[in-house]
Amino acid sequence: MNYKMIFYTIGRMVKLFGLTLLIPMIVAIGYGEDFLSFIWTILIIESIGFIFTFRKPKDLEIYSKEAIVSIALAWIIISLLGALLYIISGAIPYFFDAFFEMISGITTTGATILVDIESLPRGILFYRSFTNFLGGIGILIFILAISSNGNINAIFFLRAESTGPSRNKMTNKVKNTAIATYIIYFGITILCFISLLLTGLDWFDACTLSFSTAGTGGLAPKNQSVASYGNLGAEIVITIFMFIFSINFAVYFLIFTGKILLTIKNEELWTFVIIFFASIILVTIDIIDVVGGFWNALRYASFEVSSSISCCGFGNTDYNNWPTFSKSLLLLIMVMGGCAGSTAGGLKVSRVVGLVKSSKQKLLQVTNPRKVLNVKIDGKVQDESFINSLYFYFCIYVTILAISTLLLSLDPAVDVQTALSACIATFNNAGPGIGIVGPLGNYGSLASGSKFLLSYLMLLGRLEIFPMIIIFIPSTWKKKKNIIQKNSYDLL
Amino acid sequence: MNYKMIFYTIGRMVKLFGLTLLIPMIVAIGYGEDFLSFIWTILIIESIGFIFTFRKPKDLEIYSKEAIVSIALAWIIISLLGALLYIISGAIPYFFDAFFEMISGITTTGATILVDIESLPRGILFYRSFTNFLGGIGILIFILAISSNGNINAIFFLRAESTGPSRNKMTNKVKNTAIATYIIYFGITILCFISLLLTGLDWFDACTLSFSTAGTGGLAPKNQSVASYGNLGAEIVITIFMFIFSINFAVYFLIFTGKILLTIKNEELWTFVIIFFASIILVTIDIIDVVGGFWNALRYASFEVSSSISCCGFGNTDYNNWPTFSKSLLLLIMVMGGCAGSTAGGLKVSRVVGLVKSSKQKLLQVTNPRKVLNVKIDGKVQDESFINSLYFYFCIYVTILAISTLLLSLDPAVDVQTALSACIATFNNAGPGIGIVGPLGNYGSLASGSKFLLSYLMLLGRLEIFPMIIIFIPSTWKKKKNIIQKNSYDLL
Repeated sequence: MNYKMIFYTIGRMVKLFGLTLLIPMIVAIGYGEDFLSFIWTILIIESIGFIFTFRKPKDLEIYSKEAIVSIALAWIIISLLGALLYIISGAIPYFFDAFFEMISGITTTGATILVDIESLPRGILFYRSFTNFLGGIGILIFILAISSNGNINAIFFLRAESTGPSRNKMTNKVKNTAIATYIIYFGITILCFISLLLTGLDWFDACTLSFSTAGTGGLAPKNQSVASYGNLGAEIVITIFMFIFSINFAVYFLIFTGKILLTIKNEELWTFVIIFFASIILVTIDIIDVVGGFWNALRYASFEVSSSISCCGFGNTDYNNWPTFSKSLLLLIMVMGGCAGSTAGGLKVSRVVGLVKSSKQKLLQVTNPRKVLNVKIDGKVQDESFINSLYFYFCIYVTILAISTLLLSLDPAVDVQTALSACIATFNNAGPGIGIVGPLGNYGSLASGSKFLLSYLMLLGRLEIFPMIIIFIPSTWKKKKNIIQKNSYDLL
Repeated sequence: MNYKMIFYTIGRMVKLFGLTLLIPMIVAIGYGEDFLSFIWTILIIESIGFIFTFRKPKDLEIYSKEAIVSIALAWIIISLLGALLYIISGAIPYFFDAFFEMISGITTTGATILVDIESLPRGILFYRSFTNFLGGIGILIFILAISSNGNINAIFFLRAESTGPSRNKMTNKVKNTAIATYIIYFGITILCFISLLLTGLDWFDACTLSFSTAGTGGLAPKNQSVASYGNLGAEIVITIFMFIFSINFAVYFLIFTGKILLTIKNEELWTFVIIFFASIILVTIDIIDVVGGFWNALRYASFEVSSSISCCGFGNTDYNNWPTFSKSLLLLIMVMGGCAGSTAGGLKVSRVVGLVKSSKQKLLQVTNPRKVLNVKIDGKVQDESFINSLYFYFCIYVTILAISTLLLSLDPAVDVQTALSACIATFNNAGPGIGIVGPLGNYGSLASGSKFLLSYLMLLGRLEIFPMIIIFIPSTWKKKKNIIQKNSYDLL
């Protein structure tokens, strides 16, 4: 374990994060609001970053395990520091609340503890949605950092066996991919912003909403989320962009580089598209009598399906009074989530595809024991260890969900349905669940312990579980270098 | 596929089942009730059995796949035939209801669609609890049939590779184990019956309750389940015997043959015992304010924990008004269930132990990639394919639970909590869930489609999932013999 390098890496991330606070500060100044709390927060963050990076370590080599530990710790530390602004400005005076809101932002979850959102200053509201946008970049960096080949499941292959290409080659490749990813992310966000302006929203609403859409975060500057605007055009724009941000960014990369035919072979993409539209049709039929007519049903169904499957978490209506089937379906597509390599949350469609295909193969193998049956994804045969890692991930995922639901049940404010849906919504970085934590509700009435538990769940979900577990395993902290694979962190 | 032999095997089971109806018929005669419906039902069942076994096939060899298919089909056919008594006698006139009640009995689930249980004739009530007892035997036969070494996960190793010992040797071994198992099952049931008589219950109640306890079924002859008696002694007896019937019968075999020291190494047993008592303590603390004092809390907590973990499903109180934590915990231990090789339901403790140990090993492997870490259970290293089969089972298990909850949500009578708990309760063969299907409630108000879905779930759960899926895979029905392992069915 190269402790000095971990410190140094985290310090660099902290300093970078501190600088980004200048943007919401400018907004606060523009609206003539208090900006001193911004200055104090930035000063504290930069000082801590300065202390962390004071001495550049001699040994600059960083291994996979250290990279993972750095990311996990950086995410926690940045959440703690980012929460300072809420506390110092007095917007959210209590620690657990501020920490929850910050984690919810940076993990692009979009769950809120705020009851009266609109009473907050604009600078703070801007910052709140801005954390969703930053979280989106964060998760894209994370995906690139843990894998050089874009395979999101690579995180579980942090083993001596997986050596990979030489350092320089990899760095260049990752750097180019990173730049392309950022361009796509910023580009689509700007498109979303302009489209929202065209629907008649003012620049502040268009900006905050496009930030939250880009990160599939879902923190809106209004008490009643997107329903507050009553703007059909804006709802359509957001529905479409939540869908766009749930697709693997590699698909856009392929489209922009003229390799559009390659996307046809992408099974994850097509599975996602089919489930997306099938869910809209099913929900529309299910709610048609409740919401008054086909067009209303289609409007609410498309928005809420897009919001749930992307794990964004905006709401344009309160689905608590919908039939049980629609509510269960929304929870289930939340669990599946969007495509790997996007800012969406959930298990990811690629994992679901892998598990379904492998299960089918295993069942067929029982009745055809002599045939050799392989699991093929995108036309390529998948190796056994990859498939096993999917089952392991799924098993850990379900276990965490079950145990956290049990723990959340200790909160006297929740019933079984609320406990389960709150855990599903935070763990998958979606945001709102069912019951008191519904799309137009909030997490404010939960106990501090519950908020802490859900904060941890958001981090677990966002970092694909393992980093947030690995940092609690004592043998992680042993001083020997036992991971050979080098990982490039130069892109930070 | 040896179709003739499958027919013949099912026919033998059907004939045997028909004969067992003589016992409840005698009870009906004893009470001076209508017994003609019994005679008609027995005649129909025996005629069908006669047609099935009319021609003894020349090729008597039966392979694992055929054995599994026979069992799966036999369970369905016997449920259909057993439901005839309910229909013919007029006790449960509607097909889906009668089918549900019969499956619930024979799979030892204990879910009921009956609203007024006590209005039925005694012979029918006796038959109802008797199906729980028969189901208990059925599942013990099933466990023996699918594996000669008592390894319940063997069902997934129905492959050409697993040859096993030669036929005669195996038959003898399985036959002896079967006889020992039956003696233990009957012996403990008689003990339970005598203990219940001593608490002051009459012979009818003692007999039906001990039948339902033995199969961990939970069909009581009263509207309010065990709560109807208000008999503390009987509650204590049933609590203890539900616990006893949830333990692997091999443990009793070891105890009776003087090998008591071997049980100390049994990790499944100790895990089960610890979780059992820990759950009682947690629930007692949680409900102490709701039920009025420590002793009441202990009484209800021990009974409901024992009933849930064994997947029996008796109730001595309505836990719907308990705090959320206790309800979630009861659902969770229902999912875990009892030990393998018992009549209890659920995932089985052995699977949970295997998954927890393997997950721990996999996580440690990430930070210690160069160490060779094995998964040991009962001191023995477990091979990779066994561990992988556990993950696969768990994945299929959770998927079925999720999809069936979604489908059950289509029923306008259920909310999310009821849908989930009803699926958990039937799939794990426990019986009552939360909400309208609670411990003192029933499944009567559900739609016919829901009853059919839950009936299938009970069968899926009872036969450890795969047999009830395999019969729907077209390649199962191909005529070639592609499974080499021979399996003994002579014990039927």
